[in-house]
Amino acid sequence: MNAPEKPPFASLLAQACTPFPASRKVHVSGTRHPGVAVPLREIALSNGERVTVYDTSGPYTAPGFTADVRTGLPALRAPWLDARADTEPYAGRAPQAVDDGDRRDTPDAERLQALRQQVAGLQRTPRRARAGQCVTQMHYARRGIVTPEMEFVALREMGRREWMQAYGGDAEREARLRGDARGARIPDVITPEWVRDEVAAGRAVIPANINHPELEPMAIGRNFRVKVNANIGNSAVSSGIEEEVEKLVWSTRWGADTVMDLSTGRHIHTTRDWILRNAPVPIGTVPIYQALEKVGGVAEDLSWPIFRDTLIEQAEQGVDYFTIHAGLRLPFIPLTARRRTGIVSRGGSILAKWCITHHRENFLYTHFAEICEILRAYDVSFSLGDGLRPGSLSDANDEAQFAELRTLGELTQIAWQHEVQTMIEGPGHVPMHLIQANMDEQLKHCHGAPFYTLGPLTIDIAPGYDHIASAVGAAMIGWMGTAMLCYVTPKEHLGLPNREDVKQGLIAYKIAAHAADVAKGHPGARAHDDAMSQARFEFRWEDQFNLGLDPDTARSFHDETLPKDAAKQA
Amino acid sequence: MNAPEKPPFASLLAQACTPFPASRKVHVSGTRHPGVAVPLREIALSNGERVTVYDTSGPYTAPGFTADVRTGLPALRAPWLDARADTEPYAGRAPQAVDDGDRRDTPDAERLQALRQQVAGLQRTPRRARAGQCVTQMHYARRGIVTPEMEFVALREMGRREWMQAYGGDAEREARLRGDARGARIPDVITPEWVRDEVAAGRAVIPANINHPELEPMAIGRNFRVKVNANIGNSAVSSGIEEEVEKLVWSTRWGADTVMDLSTGRHIHTTRDWILRNAPVPIGTVPIYQALEKVGGVAEDLSWPIFRDTLIEQAEQGVDYFTIHAGLRLPFIPLTARRRTGIVSRGGSILAKWCITHHRENFLYTHFAEICEILRAYDVSFSLGDGLRPGSLSDANDEAQFAELRTLGELTQIAWQHEVQTMIEGPGHVPMHLIQANMDEQLKHCHGAPFYTLGPLTIDIAPGYDHIASAVGAAMIGWMGTAMLCYVTPKEHLGLPNREDVKQGLIAYKIAAHAADVAKGHPGARAHDDAMSQARFEFRWEDQFNLGLDPDTARSFHDETLPKDAAKQA
Repeated sequence: MNAPEKPPFASLLAQACTPFPASRKVHVSGTRHPGVAVPLREIALSNGERVTVYDTSGPYTAPGFTADVRTGLPALRAPWLDARADTEPYAGRAPQAVDDGDRRDTPDAERLQALRQQVAGLQRTPRRARAGQCVTQMHYARRGIVTPEMEFVALREMGRREWMQAYGGDAEREARLRGDARGARIPDVITPEWVRDEVAAGRAVIPANINHPELEPMAIGRNFRVKVNANIGNSAVSSGIEEEVEKLVWSTRWGADTVMDLSTGRHIHTTRDWILRNAPVPIGTVPIYQALEKVGGVAEDLSWPIFRDTLIEQAEQGVDYFTIHAGLRLPFIPLTARRRTGIVSRGGSILAKWCITHHRENFLYTHFAEICEILRAYDVSFSLGDGLRPGSLSDANDEAQFAELRTLGELTQIAWQHEVQTMIEGPGHVPMHLIQANMDEQLKHCHGAPFYTLGPLTIDIAPGYDHIASAVGAAMIGWMGTAMLCYVTPKEHLGLPNREDVKQGLIAYKIAAHAADVAKGHPGARAHDDAMSQARFEFRWEDQFNLGLDPDTARSFHDETLPKDAAKQA
Repeated sequence: MNAPEKPPFASLLAQACTPFPASRKVHVSGTRHPGVAVPLREIALSNGERVTVYDTSGPYTAPGFTADVRTGLPALRAPWLDARADTEPYAGRAPQAVDDGDRRDTPDAERLQALRQQVAGLQRTPRRARAGQCVTQMHYARRGIVTPEMEFVALREMGRREWMQAYGGDAEREARLRGDARGARIPDVITPEWVRDEVAAGRAVIPANINHPELEPMAIGRNFRVKVNANIGNSAVSSGIEEEVEKLVWSTRWGADTVMDLSTGRHIHTTRDWILRNAPVPIGTVPIYQALEKVGGVAEDLSWPIFRDTLIEQAEQGVDYFTIHAGLRLPFIPLTARRRTGIVSRGGSILAKWCITHHRENFLYTHFAEICEILRAYDVSFSLGDGLRPGSLSDANDEAQFAELRTLGELTQIAWQHEVQTMIEGPGHVPMHLIQANMDEQLKHCHGAPFYTLGPLTIDIAPGYDHIASAVGAAMIGWMGTAMLCYVTPKEHLGLPNREDVKQGLIAYKIAAHAADVAKGHPGARAHDDAMSQARFEFRWEDQFNLGLDPDTARSFHDETLPKDAAKQA
């Protein structure tokens, strides 16, 4: 394989920070907490209207903002955390060579040293809950406290709606198009108190580690707008900080509400510093990946102390949610024996190997209460992993999958006893007619905790197009009540996604999430479509491009086939 | 706009005829009609298995077949038509200059002359029903006759299933994954007699003009596999016969079950000769487009005689189904007044303009019985057009749309009195939660005639990605009972699709159709997925590529990111 020329990541990053055409960042201020300033993107139309839309892109697209990836984003939550006065700085866990995979003789010690120097400016003193304190959003919510994070979320979900009046007011139309929320309870007006109630009940998660003060809070819940997650991972040979941050910024530009850092191999710890300090969105990880690196990739050598140490390491860095495969119990593993595709979750197969080798119960299950104690000290949220998710239509909805799901429901109740925020991961590969059963089982057994699914893919025969095969399933399960959709890129099953694949995956999933919001009847969701359709009817081409999910592509597709001026007036 | 270098269409055509990797064409022979030889694609796997799949690509991918686009495909149905002895050759309608748009002084008479010379070898003497005869498949079916076309369809829908036994036999799995046909009645074994019954009842259409003997028969019906249509249209400046035929062959290569020729402007008639004589799939048209050209683009000048003449012209050429917007009645037009996007169907807006100008009932409605008389003499099928389909979510499921749909149901019964095969066109733009109502209304009012929908798009804000936004709706409505899905390309709403757009649209729609087949539980549909999943589990990379909808892309995506040999053995 020829090594392609190294892309100029600093310049790609600058590109990813360019504001969308005809767009500017505006903010809605909190009334309860004056420091709250919620970003929105305002699109100026050619007829003088201004359409505002949800904005995940963070300060990068703000006017005058210059990204300095070596110092990180402003810590907008720091004053809120200080005001609560329930956390304390502490020395933190001592860094170890193994954190970056240096278990054996490493040929690239110099290289790693250079990479670490790049993150010197990103080191922060970690904080944790003071002794006897709980610092989770669920804890506050249950005590009736509306945090700035909750107010931020409420304003963000509300958005600005004044402009929508131009598209409403037709009673026949509103009645005809009224959403079908399928059991979700979506209020017309979203108040901070309502957000608090949702968090208190466990129906919504606000992933917000106290060590990630840079993030703009968002919520994941069935009664909120459907969210989208993008996975990124480190490059085999990272060229440096710009490369990793660029992937993150690129993802949020195209609508990622959260980003999972699935890095493996070397430099995991250092990569995470780069990402977290520059991330305006919550960051999730699968800590077992790093724990495995620490034991040289030998699953059998994993142990609770090593895993525990990894949780603390990542919690101190600021990871907002952890995928924890605690529901993959020893007795469930034989249920996979007759499967077509066995255990396809990477975390799941690591833990299954450990369980089988030692013939012992999964240590994440046996130590679950201790995990809760760690997470509650930082407000890291659980994403309870579906290690037994189906890897093919053949294995969809089988007993292995649902036995684990029921266990995740039990664990949810334990997590909530510790006031740890919790969501539940779901499949995977599921034919259309079996999707509803996934949602039904999750609702039945998981007590309203948000569902977070990967796709699901509705067929298996579309390698190269699995973003489409899964967007179908994602849109459907989003409508049915799934709170967040983990994207699938065109490279799924084939290789590592590049920049274009990440964008393609995100657009497909923004389509799915928006289709779900419209079907559920989220207030205001359809107004964006109405603005587009009105522009279409009036042949306002520029407005059509600018209102689209991807203005660049829409504009270039149009210009490609039609003579510029004639067509735009046609 | 710079004129791009003219693509070498002859070489592109040769490329489009290349067999898929590891694939060869095989045939299943009829028992009732020995001349019946149904094509399938057999994929050789590296473990010795042979998977066979439905094949729309026609003789082009047959070993040793050399396409001579100037003489056309073999007339495989000719002996069947002869044997029925109910048709007769006749002189046919006299060609007129206006057939190719030469109404006014034409600056390109020489050019047209050259184009026509290219099709000299494609001229056939037209046939029609003998006086007093009806030659439609519905007519035969109602008389209990199983035609070779019906046997062909039965064998084609059955495919080969022996290889599927390797993936079956697990009772628990089969019970768990059993399809949900949502009211469709899908037999385990498809016999010619069953096909006949479906056609007799009007639940299936076999589009097969007696003047299109080149086609490989296929069926469209709720109880059959879900089909996909691709639209193609002439180029503004056609370079010749290879260019038009290449588009057609390219479409069938990527799975188009039927192709609509939506050409407008000049050279319509000649382009149609090129397409039909080289088409192994049914060809549909919207005759009002050509009629409008004949009156210089002035909708008000349309008349029944001009339209009637166009129907005969196209029926003689061999068009297999006509979109006829006969349900757009004068009283329905005011129902669109409060719409956001008015009338977006091109045919619909032409006829609405005519109706309003003359303040008269749509002449397609008032002459409907006469249209039936023409169509039955050639076995052209109706595709009753939805001229009032919604062009935005805002207008979905409104009274204008459903009033027209109910009228299409009335017209279906008239068509069936004349034994003319009939399907019903549907939307368009529909949010997910309103899709089921479209299917319900169609089933309620259209007496089981097959539904043929465009998408529907589930959101409006994805220009550049409308193939994805609509694949979601297409998969859902396919599962609900829609028989054929008209594709949408990434260029929808933006411009004219190029070769790559056509492919992208088709792949998205093959995903939707296959997802629907799997969900409905079409016998054998899932076996293809099982073969893929098994190859995935066993790391048989080549088999994964070759079993995919697009082997080329899967292979290139894989090779792009991973060192070739290591990864394929990983």
